Amino acid sequence: MNGPAKHLLNLKCRTSPQWLRQVDNHLDQILIDHAHCENKAARTALLLMLRYVENEKLCRKMTDIINDKLQHFHLVCGILKRRDIRFRRLRGSNYGKQLNGLIRRHEPEHAVDLLLVAALIEARSCERFEILHNYLEDNELSTFYGSLFESEANHYATYVQLARDFAPAREVSQRLHQLATEEARIIEAGDKHSRMHS
Amino acid sequence: MNGPAKHLLNLKCRTSPQWLRQVDNHLDQILIDHAHCENKAARTALLLMLRYVENEKLCRKMTDIINDKLQHFHLVCGILKRRDIRFRRLRGSNYGKQLNGLIRRHEPEHAVDLLLVAALIEARSCERFEILHNYLEDNELSTFYGSLFESEANHYATYVQLARDFAPAREVSQRLHQLATEEARIIEAGDKHSRMHS
Repeated sequence: MNGPAKHLLNLKCRTSPQWLRQVDNHLDQILIDHAHCENKAARTALLLMLRYVENEKLCRKMTDIINDKLQHFHLVCGILKRRDIRFRRLRGSNYGKQLNGLIRRHEPEHAVDLLLVAALIEARSCERFEILHNYLEDNELSTFYGSLFESEANHYATYVQLARDFAPAREVSQRLHQLATEEARIIEAGDKHSRMHS
Repeated sequence: MNGPAKHLLNLKCRTSPQWLRQVDNHLDQILIDHAHCENKAARTALLLMLRYVENEKLCRKMTDIINDKLQHFHLVCGILKRRDIRFRRLRGSNYGKQLNGLIRRHEPEHAVDLLLVAALIEARSCERFEILHNYLEDNELSTFYGSLFESEANHYATYVQLARDFAPAREVSQRLHQLATEEARIIEAGDKHSRMHS
């Protein structure tokens, strides 16, 4: 790693060097998982839009995020193709599932948590993309990840800001802190499969 | 109605004049329902993309459709806003639910049916948009619906074409004929709520 990620965005831990070993050993799987992650992120944004369809600001922001995610999905697919890596289904990491398990059920807490979990996933992606940008010697991939992390940081900020439409800023900050602590615990536990969020 | 819809696209029945009475009496509800329909169509396309993510052609086409649908959603929202019609949740018509009930469960029939049901919904929207284009005296709405029906016809063609990746063309045609017959039955039964597909 050439330097620590600057973009921690409220994350409570940095990625461990162990993940870089997964990157070295299974870069193909991480790239394939990245493509799936972009689609899943588009789905998250669309489900938020369908659920809170009367919130005009949210719908506009979700539309932008969906467009970004689908565009990134096709960019990753292009990279896979040029490298003769067959795009295929992969067992996902447990990261998203564990985070989703923390979402409270009643409104407006439900909305706050959906948005903050989405924000934290963006923040972690942002941190990892910056690590990949600095770490990978492959020029195409380094440039690619360098071009992506700003958009993830923006998505993070968008989600946190939208959460403030559902609860006072102070409550949102406290909950973000709690969820970020859990997120760090999940990330530090790691995952035996090599994935974007393992 | 100034003239019969030209764009029948394999539909087995034309819209009855009864629907035009619903348009006259509850245009606001039909416009609101239209906005919801665009979002639901985006969801259908995204779910197809997630399910058949290894089919590159399908993923590209679904991305285009999602972008179109979300753009149309925001256009309808703009129309509602300019008319001071509050965008709100509406009980949907039974049309989509009844059509989805016809989808076979096993692959590859499942894929064929998902795509053909999506195609038929596009075809019916296309027919209705053309009717609205011809029928509505309101200039903004008439122009708007005139600008949309070509895109629905293209989406119809895209879905039918994609179905042919999952089954021989002859089988796809037979199944399209069966499903279109059911679709006509559902449309002819009508719906007491005034909706885009009532």
